Amino acid sequence: MTTRLDEFESYRTRMNDRIAEIDHLGIKRFYNLDTNCYKDGALDSRTKELLGLVASMVLRCNDCIDYHILQCVDAGLTDAELYDAFNVALVVGGSIVIPHLRHAVESLDLCRQRAG
Amino acid sequence: MTTRLDEFESYRTRMNDRIAEIDHLGIKRFYNLDTNCYKDGALDSRTKELLGLVASMVLRCNDCIDYHILQCVDAGLTDAELYDAFNVALVVGGSIVIPHLRHAVESLDLCRQRAG
Amino acid sequence: MTTRLDEFESYRTRMNDRIAEIDHLGIKRFYNLDTNCYKDGALDSRTKELLGLVASMVLRCNDCIDYHILQCVDAGLTDAELYDAFNVALVVGGSIVIPHLRHAVESLDLCRQRAG
Amino acid sequence: MTTRLDEFESYRTRMNDRIAEIDHLGIKRFYNLDTNCYKDGALDSRTKELLGLVASMVLRCNDCIDYHILQCVDAGLTDAELYDAFNVALVVGGSIVIPHLRHAVESLDLCRQRAG
Amino acid sequence: MTTRLDEFESYRTRMNDRIAEIDHLGIKRFYNLDTNCYKDGALDSRTKELLGLVASMVLRCNDCIDYHILQCVDAGLTDAELYDAFNVALVVGGSIVIPHLRHAVESLDLCRQRAG
Amino acid sequence: MTTRLDEFESYRTRMNDRIAEIDHLGIKRFYNLDTNCYKDGALDSRTKELLGLVASMVLRCNDCIDYHILQCVDAGLTDAELYDAFNVALVVGGSIVIPHLRHAVESLDLCRQRAG
Repeated sequence: MTTRLDEFESYRTRMNDRIAEIDHLGIKRFYNLDTNCYKDGALDSRTKELLGLVASMVLRCNDCIDYHILQCVDAGLTDAELYDAFNVALVVGGSIVIPHLRHAVESLDLCRQRAG
Repeated sequence: MTTRLDEFESYRTRMNDRIAEIDHLGIKRFYNLDTNCYKDGALDSRTKELLGLVASMVLRCNDCIDYHILQCVDAGLTDAELYDAFNVALVVGGSIVIPHLRHAVESLDLCRQRAG
Repeated sequence: MTTRLDEFESYRTRMNDRIAEIDHLGIKRFYNLDTNCYKDGALDSRTKELLGLVASMVLRCNDCIDYHILQCVDAGLTDAELYDAFNVALVVGGSIVIPHLRHAVESLDLCRQRAG
Repeated sequence: MTTRLDEFESYRTRMNDRIAEIDHLGIKRFYNLDTNCYKDGALDSRTKELLGLVASMVLRCNDCIDYHILQCVDAGLTDAELYDAFNVALVVGGSIVIPHLRHAVESLDLCRQRAG
Repeated sequence: MTTRLDEFESYRTRMNDRIAEIDHLGIKRFYNLDTNCYKDGALDSRTKELLGLVASMVLRCNDCIDYHILQCVDAGLTDAELYDAFNVALVVGGSIVIPHLRHAVESLDLCRQRAG
Repeated sequence: MTTRLDEFESYRTRMNDRIAEIDHLGIKRFYNLDTNCYKDGALDSRTKELLGLVASMVLRCNDCIDYHILQCVDAGLTDAELYDAFNVALVVGGSIVIPHLRHAVESLDLCRQRAG
């Protein structure tokens, strides 16, 4: 069955491909910068994905949350670790984050079901 | 010599003490929740302080940045690790974060000078 | 007929129940804090729900707007009072709030139709 | 075929008509102010629509983005000019703007297809 | 003794006078709209000032907070009522609001001292 | 006489120099991307600086506002044109932008006085 997580991934890929066709050096470079900033460095990729997830939650962007949850799961983070990160986002960002917490928990569950 | 970091800490302590005098259960409980969310759990305190720092940078709050830099330094994070976290915040949050990057770098330098 | 307001309520209940299963004290306590902060105190619940509504509008969160409109209607606020609150949110938050004003007016209409 | 852009326009018109029925002088005046601020003045309407578009992108509001893209296309802005504006929004607002860049590029494509 | 609250009021008056000299109808009308939206209507002025205060706190603007605290005190709101409003802002907006809570409590204290 | 605009420029230069010493490729590339995005392209530099200014106003960052006002004045924009841009920012961003409008008008005046 196709879930909203599958639909998001397919839309994301389709539109990023479309954007890759645009002949604009600034936009291309921004995409590279974005990809590179989560690679292993002084901090490992796993920690950086967590940073990206919490930043996405306090800035309240569901698509960014979905992307980073998928990355965090790939990086081997456990549910307990992700709940701890959700809690930091909730406390820093307040109850306005709650709808995005609901979204994040549902995305994580969908992600585990798909894998499992 | 007194730096702006010392002044921030002294103002922060004075006003938090003043707020602690206020007889409001909700406010008191929020402060407890805030303190507890950075304690060791499934994620260690060190990682959580980094999460708090990046959240503060993308939400662009200098006082929160200063507080979490002090906590990160206490938790033993290196400059290279903190620069990596700054970079995630810059990429997620964009050039509007640059003035707060300047502030964060200056705060980190002040913090190292005070220690050294 | 099922409206988007009914769907929101059902999704909200389902996911809050799912989150209640998560064994994380910080998240549980945040939910309690959130519930308690709208109870009668020095300000009555009716005024606090209005505060929650305007905060949700200027922070531009449709789910939070829907929740507080339902609460405001339960608390007996009239359309004229809610329009006045919408206006404060519009002036403070600017034209970027207009899509959320459209959402809020539609939610209020759906809510009155369901009741009526 | 009806696209999401057509649906947005139809919903926007229907709800703005509903809001126009509300007897609230402040809300009416805000709508007038909003309409007038994009008219030719010291800056021409074309430039002002670009300003509205970039403001909508960094504030991350898809409905506002769609509205201003339609206005920009009406004002004769080319794809290359709009991509340049998208890039400014991306750099100022950061990777959190990327989902809205995807939305904006799709809206622009839908708009050109409808015209073409 | 001159406090930061006196300095804010004097700067605010000076710059609003300067802006009033600018020959721009849109800016003048926005100022009128802003003044009018806090006047008695379906909701009384007292409630509207509270809405403005909480909106300012969750949007994290110290100058707006100071302005609305002065207005709330003029409207006769008690400390206990204002603390309740602070708590709603803190829960909705999260710990990122704490530096602005410190500012708000200090402003309220300065305001009471000046009156007393 | 040294104004706050001179102090901002001197602080900005000092800290950007300090950041340039940091050996982090991601941060260096972001700075390049930021510089390049305001250069002449499909849109001219003058229009892009206006976009940067309005983005900074609706995101409510005084340092970014000061930087873009200096750039706009260098690019030859008139006061009347800048007031028109301020108005778009005010309408899109709402009364929460007013303190930043005061700041922007004062910065523009300081900038003209220094030139004159």
